[in-house]
Amino acid sequence: MPQLSERAVLMPESPIRRLAPLAEEAKMRGVKVFHLNIGQPDIKTPQVALDALRHIDREILEYSPSDGFYSLREKLVGYYDQYQIKLSPDDIIITSGGSEAVLFAFMSCLNPGDEIIVPEPAYANYMAFAISAGAVIRPITSTIDDGFALPSIEQFEALINERTRGILICNPNNPTGYLYTRKEMNRIRDLVKRYNLFLFSDEVYREFIYTGSPYISACHLEGIEDNVVLIDSVSKRYSECGIRIGALITKNKALRKAVMKFCQARLSPPLLGQIVAEASLDAPRSYAIHTYEEYIDRRNCLIDELNKLEGVYSPIPMGAFYTVARLPIDDSDRFYEWCLREFEYEGTTIMLAPASGFYSEKGLGRNEVRIAYVLEKAELKQAIRTLGKALEQYPGRTIK
Amino acid sequence: MPQLSERAVLMPESPIRRLAPLAEEAKMRGVKVFHLNIGQPDIKTPQVALDALRHIDREILEYSPSDGFYSLREKLVGYYDQYQIKLSPDDIIITSGGSEAVLFAFMSCLNPGDEIIVPEPAYANYMAFAISAGAVIRPITSTIDDGFALPSIEQFEALINERTRGILICNPNNPTGYLYTRKEMNRIRDLVKRYNLFLFSDEVYREFIYTGSPYISACHLEGIEDNVVLIDSVSKRYSECGIRIGALITKNKALRKAVMKFCQARLSPPLLGQIVAEASLDAPRSYAIHTYEEYIDRRNCLIDELNKLEGVYSPIPMGAFYTVARLPIDDSDRFYEWCLREFEYEGTTIMLAPASGFYSEKGLGRNEVRIAYVLEKAELKQAIRTLGKALEQYPGRTIK
Repeated sequence: MPQLSERAVLMPESPIRRLAPLAEEAKMRGVKVFHLNIGQPDIKTPQVALDALRHIDREILEYSPSDGFYSLREKLVGYYDQYQIKLSPDDIIITSGGSEAVLFAFMSCLNPGDEIIVPEPAYANYMAFAISAGAVIRPITSTIDDGFALPSIEQFEALINERTRGILICNPNNPTGYLYTRKEMNRIRDLVKRYNLFLFSDEVYREFIYTGSPYISACHLEGIEDNVVLIDSVSKRYSECGIRIGALITKNKALRKAVMKFCQARLSPPLLGQIVAEASLDAPRSYAIHTYEEYIDRRNCLIDELNKLEGVYSPIPMGAFYTVARLPIDDSDRFYEWCLREFEYEGTTIMLAPASGFYSEKGLGRNEVRIAYVLEKAELKQAIRTLGKALEQYPGRTIK
Repeated sequence: MPQLSERAVLMPESPIRRLAPLAEEAKMRGVKVFHLNIGQPDIKTPQVALDALRHIDREILEYSPSDGFYSLREKLVGYYDQYQIKLSPDDIIITSGGSEAVLFAFMSCLNPGDEIIVPEPAYANYMAFAISAGAVIRPITSTIDDGFALPSIEQFEALINERTRGILICNPNNPTGYLYTRKEMNRIRDLVKRYNLFLFSDEVYREFIYTGSPYISACHLEGIEDNVVLIDSVSKRYSECGIRIGALITKNKALRKAVMKFCQARLSPPLLGQIVAEASLDAPRSYAIHTYEEYIDRRNCLIDELNKLEGVYSPIPMGAFYTVARLPIDDSDRFYEWCLREFEYEGTTIMLAPASGFYSEKGLGRNEVRIAYVLEKAELKQAIRTLGKALEQYPGRTIK
């Protein structure tokens, strides 16, 4: 058999998806599994979006433009304008999910061996896209004790060398729920300017900000317009993760041209997803308000319940719909597996995302997990009760 | 402004898509443009597929599995069985179009600097995906005078060195319409075996074979099961290019595992496309027959009309819905642009794909164009009449 590529060997296996069969087995045993592990909301997709599908009047489901329908990009200009992000349709490229936007950004900006600095814990798939481009992620650790605030500029500067090409942030943050302050964003801007770096900014959770603090987009930062690559997706906003519609946004014309070459090679983004996404932008204000209130409620419920458990600590996430919590356990990977294989409480168990998967450095996050609050409050309460019982019985519990 | 990556510079720009604005301008001038340039069929998508969308009963458009719905893969097993391709659902990975299947195959199998041998003229985007993976395409030229038959084994062997990792074929071929014979496929098999290579086989046009000759899939070749990567797509089969559903098929378990890591990173293939593709597999036999008969008719009409034109020669394509024809012109890129900018006949002009884009070597294909027969017969006839007039008037005509 011919050998596989080195990057195929390097590529991380998704721990969550790898162990998904365990959840299936638990369900086969009749155990109800609370999914706290993934960002698949249970919120309904806007009715207006589903109606657009039901009333589709096309007879041929044909290719769309490589950068997506102009009508969708034009409508997105209005959407971003609400957030004081001033764009033209030509600054926007529609991609197959935010994932493809990250991949094409890295492919266009990073040579093999080039480095980007990423505050961790971080969304695990950034690593996969960096490996695809042959690039190297230099992690910089934010800590639960600091509430996952941005590490100091000195720590960034200590990592910068002639191979450093960019900084990647996720704001509001997956997995921590942290929202970067204006001060922090300005510090990032200064770094980007000083060292002429790209700033890749994944802002797919901008709808989900629960504090009075302002949302500072990378696109709000002045003087680095040519350095910013905004990554976006409609998945979370409208609970339509499956349609695979995201966007790569940049005002840098040369970069847009480069990204377009990757877009043309894959011909076009999904046609039906674009129809749904465009219709979703017409969802009534009540949809956004309902969704927002629902998440605020869930967040409050989750954090209250979590912090009541002995030895458990979670900061209060300011945005997104995740939190990273510290648990009194020896190893979150073992705990995760144990919950699915050996534990049940009143016919239920839980599935969490071990935080080890969000750090590059081995050993970090061993007693942390990411919890997504994508279940309704009653379920969430039950899930946390089950978590509490699991922590009591888990053989690797670190407090007696 | 930070520098872009070297691969972004290397990436070819799609000549067809680059000049698409010229067609728009021609239309604005009131000129009707016959699109002979792209493989976007005018055949309707099966009704049963459109109905599946109209009757969608989901309330949340959520993530699907990274390798696609099991139900779709299971149904595809039955589809391939009709072609004596024996698979299990676990041999099939659903991708975002055939494009993503090629990308993930290259990413998983090829290291930067690795080489694959590709008979040319070839689908231009293979080059883009090779560049994405840092791999090198070593072209081997098939010629219009040989009807684009497979070049000799000696020519392949002359290119094989320690960096050679695979052979890529497209069968039936885009752009030539050539169908590899059993003898040719056996020669490929022997090469693949002798040098332990991957065989990437793009067979998205298997529905469109117009001769009595048998369709020999790479999956029919014995003794190289672990070497074969089949690339597929439902785009052409059901005239649903926009849904972006393809497949990567391999019996090589290690390769499947590697490809799955790339699949997990991008989360899932398009949900709605999968629903449409799955429903399409239930299209009545009459749909396939009608489509097939339509293309046979168009092919016959196109080739007859083309070969009537002075100085024009096209072999008879055995499959797909393209032909590469030789025209009495100095430069197909110039001719292409001239047709859109400066020429019209009775309010019409034509858009062709210059064949230079299908060869790596500069200068090849300069007097060849790819013509797609995706228009109905009456339109096709008109288009070829317009082509004839254009050839008469073109200043770079090479015969007097």
